[in-house]
Amino acid sequence: MEKRIYNFSAGPAILPEEVLLEVQKDLFALPGVGMSIMEISHRSKPYDAIHTEAKANLSKLLGIPDDYEILFLQGGASLQFSMVPLNLMPPKNKADYISTGSWSKKAIKEAKRVGTVNIAATTEEGEGEHKYFKRIPKQSELKLDPDASYVHFTSNNTIFGTQWQTEPEVGKVSLVCDASSDILHKKIDVKKYGLIYAGAQKNMGPSGVTLVIIRKELVERSQDSLHTMLNYKIHVENDSLYNTPTTFGVYIIMLVTRWLLKMGGLDKMYAINKNKADILYRCIDESGGYYKGHAEKDSRSLMNLTFNLSSEALEKKLIDEATKAGYNGLKGHRSVGGLRASIYNAFPTKGVEDLVSFMKDFQKKNG
Amino acid sequence: MEKRIYNFSAGPAILPEEVLLEVQKDLFALPGVGMSIMEISHRSKPYDAIHTEAKANLSKLLGIPDDYEILFLQGGASLQFSMVPLNLMPPKNKADYISTGSWSKKAIKEAKRVGTVNIAATTEEGEGEHKYFKRIPKQSELKLDPDASYVHFTSNNTIFGTQWQTEPEVGKVSLVCDASSDILHKKIDVKKYGLIYAGAQKNMGPSGVTLVIIRKELVERSQDSLHTMLNYKIHVENDSLYNTPTTFGVYIIMLVTRWLLKMGGLDKMYAINKNKADILYRCIDESGGYYKGHAEKDSRSLMNLTFNLSSEALEKKLIDEATKAGYNGLKGHRSVGGLRASIYNAFPTKGVEDLVSFMKDFQKKNG
Repeated sequence: MEKRIYNFSAGPAILPEEVLLEVQKDLFALPGVGMSIMEISHRSKPYDAIHTEAKANLSKLLGIPDDYEILFLQGGASLQFSMVPLNLMPPKNKADYISTGSWSKKAIKEAKRVGTVNIAATTEEGEGEHKYFKRIPKQSELKLDPDASYVHFTSNNTIFGTQWQTEPEVGKVSLVCDASSDILHKKIDVKKYGLIYAGAQKNMGPSGVTLVIIRKELVERSQDSLHTMLNYKIHVENDSLYNTPTTFGVYIIMLVTRWLLKMGGLDKMYAINKNKADILYRCIDESGGYYKGHAEKDSRSLMNLTFNLSSEALEKKLIDEATKAGYNGLKGHRSVGGLRASIYNAFPTKGVEDLVSFMKDFQKKNG
Repeated sequence: MEKRIYNFSAGPAILPEEVLLEVQKDLFALPGVGMSIMEISHRSKPYDAIHTEAKANLSKLLGIPDDYEILFLQGGASLQFSMVPLNLMPPKNKADYISTGSWSKKAIKEAKRVGTVNIAATTEEGEGEHKYFKRIPKQSELKLDPDASYVHFTSNNTIFGTQWQTEPEVGKVSLVCDASSDILHKKIDVKKYGLIYAGAQKNMGPSGVTLVIIRKELVERSQDSLHTMLNYKIHVENDSLYNTPTTFGVYIIMLVTRWLLKMGGLDKMYAINKNKADILYRCIDESGGYYKGHAEKDSRSLMNLTFNLSSEALEKKLIDEATKAGYNGLKGHRSVGGLRASIYNAFPTKGVEDLVSFMKDFQKKNG
């Protein structure tokens, strides 16, 4: 078997080894089907069973109430940046957006093409090319419009390594969440949300499939004038099969969610994630300032841990040596620099422990 | 190894066994990379090599000139039904569409949301719920507007089993083609086209990735007011990496195109496809009317071969017995009925020969 390395990539990201082995085993022909998952019709019984189980597993894991629909779409979160306002902004044509990072800003850019965007809060700091985010706003900072069509926020910010510890309180207005980078990392109260969307490529599967969970009553906002593929109502009416979905991607989501259920569900997953992040944050906090966390402590992400060393040269040295030692993908996003360890659901605790040993050793040698 | 059956599915469809075996071998970890193709960053060197080779292979196979761009997008042909008019219809806001089947009609529906659609020709026959198509229009039937933004046609009609034997002549107007179901089945003269789009799931790979080949000068029509993900110019500027593409799908396209080059390119592929289709059409034509081809002879598709028997009961009997014998996916589309054998590039000649034996035997027993 080909040797695997530790993959700290921010996404597409690590998948459970158990899942990869099962996909590999059945890749040539699904048992009892005689064709590869890539070759079967999206209207066939074997695919229907996969599609249905993926939805059922997600419902169980997240406790999705009956008055919500689950969709598997294409185009990533980036297409949702447009689909959300196109479908949900009318008829009031105004929405609140909370800006906590680069992805929030991209969502805002598309929403402005549709209607009026009220920036309910932004935690951006710095000037010109050196703008950055390092925290999530407090509830008291939010300037919400009670008449807005919805409030949009980004639950986890991969680039800056910040994460909402709990969702904002928005009263009776529908809450919309881009959960691309932390979906399924813990149980959330879906009832509090009007719509949740997430690209699959961090905690669910490969890139190319986008999960949308939407409260049924919101689907009524979609107007017939919308282009068919951009219309939530069409996708709901066709159970995501208006056109051919990313069948392979839905198959992987089915297997990953089955794996999550088997290992104990999202409370168990959260405990593991919390422990993994604690191990690395402790190393940072106890380094005497050798390693400096980028995010403020009460805004820290469990998924993407960002930190710096005292100089870019030292950061480069660590990244180079780490890569050689089999710790891949630690370079921070170009807009922040430094290091970023992305430790999604499937990332093993042992990998974090090994990285911490490596970092302590590096500090000793280069302190 | 799990036994495989003959897969006549219209799409997602059969892939080369050689490709499936290679994907299976490397699924757990790409050699020299140590991560699954599903886990690597779309901005990593290993993915860049895959993305670049997929484009280079397509260029070689189709002889794509330097003044064309090759994109890997999401959303299938169905999203292109909207993206084509949104990007290419302005500023004249009128385009010609040739209607040869259900997919043409869907493309027309979206185009009408953007501007004026002139139906340059339609070969639809019948009334009410019994409308159908059985032929491609003659060049002399086309009522083209020399001032149109473009002319759109569907090169192959999966449902009705008709196919353009050569592209329509449209003078100086840009020709746009939905080639989802016959791309790469033979060499075409790309210079004649302004834009070619195709979902991958017939001749190229799994569902979830869409190929777009566009003449560079046409990209200039894309207006800044377009939503980012719907803007060809943005995708061109970012080499399809504005957001995370369907990396797994592009990987399969790379392998399938590599397989096509290895087996001799598209002229060789066309000879094989022609021979395969001839074997089955001969069986139909020499059955003394027992099997009746749906499409007119000069409009017959090499990819999807549609035919009927004398009664629905007999058709059902044949499909049931064929399925039991390992010939899967022969049921015609619900809007046409009858039978459909989809024999894309990867479908083996032996499978067609075996089906013909089966059909002759069935005729003997039920003649």
